[in-house]
Amino acid sequence: MDKFSRNQRVSAITKILLENPNKVITLNTFTELFNAAKSTISEDLIIVRETIARLSVGKVDTVAGASGGVRYTCGISEDESKSFAMELCNVLKEKDRIIPGNYIYMTDIMYNPQIIRKAGVILASKFNNLEVDYVVTVETKGIPLAFEVAKNLGVQLVIVRRDNKVTEGTTVSLNYVTGSTKRIQTMSLSRKSIKKGSKCVFIDDFMKAGGTALGIINLLKEFDSELLSIGVLIEDIETTEKLVPEYISIVEYSGLDDNGAAIVQPSNAFKK
Amino acid sequence: MDKFSRNQRVSAITKILLENPNKVITLNTFTELFNAAKSTISEDLIIVRETIARLSVGKVDTVAGASGGVRYTCGISEDESKSFAMELCNVLKEKDRIIPGNYIYMTDIMYNPQIIRKAGVILASKFNNLEVDYVVTVETKGIPLAFEVAKNLGVQLVIVRRDNKVTEGTTVSLNYVTGSTKRIQTMSLSRKSIKKGSKCVFIDDFMKAGGTALGIINLLKEFDSELLSIGVLIEDIETTEKLVPEYISIVEYSGLDDNGAAIVQPSNAFKK
Repeated sequence: MDKFSRNQRVSAITKILLENPNKVITLNTFTELFNAAKSTISEDLIIVRETIARLSVGKVDTVAGASGGVRYTCGISEDESKSFAMELCNVLKEKDRIIPGNYIYMTDIMYNPQIIRKAGVILASKFNNLEVDYVVTVETKGIPLAFEVAKNLGVQLVIVRRDNKVTEGTTVSLNYVTGSTKRIQTMSLSRKSIKKGSKCVFIDDFMKAGGTALGIINLLKEFDSELLSIGVLIEDIETTEKLVPEYISIVEYSGLDDNGAAIVQPSNAFKK
Repeated sequence: MDKFSRNQRVSAITKILLENPNKVITLNTFTELFNAAKSTISEDLIIVRETIARLSVGKVDTVAGASGGVRYTCGISEDESKSFAMELCNVLKEKDRIIPGNYIYMTDIMYNPQIIRKAGVILASKFNNLEVDYVVTVETKGIPLAFEVAKNLGVQLVIVRRDNKVTEGTTVSLNYVTGSTKRIQTMSLSRKSIKKGSKCVFIDDFMKAGGTALGIINLLKEFDSELLSIGVLIEDIETTEKLVPEYISIVEYSGLDDNGAAIVQPSNAFKK
């Protein structure tokens, strides 16, 4: 087999690192794949590291020791995050999104891979330092976003169900009261899904008072596990009293204006 | 700003193309981003194209004309697909996966980003030529896989619900009979979610007789839309009479062996 050129190796290494966030990849992996010397691969990695830093799309660290290698951590520039929040606001303001009951139709946004891919990087990059074991969400609308966050953090996704299914084995079920409408809801999670003593972040599409998030905190206690933080795409700031202390949102929603369009703005961290 | 070196441009172009499958990116995008001449970018693209072809991870095409540019299409080598199917079989055979009722616990597999990312590429690469408008799934377990397939095809994901939600606006609901257990189920989809005359593929985690898939075909008719193909991670081949003519599966399941472990093998297309 012909040797790979430097350019080809750099292109290939970029691909491999981006597809394996938060995972240590040994130099041997690359020396074997490209049939190249360690010194050569080290030089390649410097180029990839510089490019990733320069484009503000995360960082590449060297991990020392016997099981050492390199690790890519996701990231996104402040500028791009802010532009994203602003563009998302413009999409949410579209008048034909308002459906009977003054709800905003946002299903298409939550299931749009291009939008959710970027939102996933923005949220995941806020949790990179937390040593997260699981990303947790409640079915259904937040699942793609939670999946992207989990992928970018290199951890397993856990989906809490509304009912318990026979295919889940033993489950823990919990009743909770939604914070804003005071309805009683059920959430259910398989015993097998979370190891004891785990650290989790909760991801959802929309947060009003945070009743669901509080339910998750209590559900995780049943697994002797802990909720470290919360990330949502959109936060309802009309509901001022929140049941949870700490969370990150990308966009703030505060009802409809006189023309029947949504009033939205980037959350503080993403204001230009 | 310092100019980017060739190596840096190649690394950056790889990243941008991989994140935008099936989307035409103009040469101008790159010339502006890197402040480089068209001829320079063209040479960069040749390197990226060769690397992607050599690694068997898809292909890069040139699109001619005024709105021309380059387009990345996802792909995966036959070898890697087959290894993936085999590894998945080994995971499924783990004895502690069998839960009361002789079901296989596979929730952790369906929510594992590393596994699902690869399965998504394998299935998407089978549909690259179909000019798909939407990837459709039914909640809940197949959502991450369907999302990955949609992302790799560069199209919108559509999730059919089991009930209808007030936040979905006008919905179309349909009762259908599951093929194997003959239970009546409901599926429900927002009117806003699919444009008339669309072409779809259906993605799910598991298929027995295909009753759900048949329900999707009928539901899509209500949207004057068409199901082109079906992709599932695991197919139950004990249920020999299928209600749908054509589908792709990665792994075949045929019950439990005498030791109570799952009998699984790669599907024909993925046999070594």
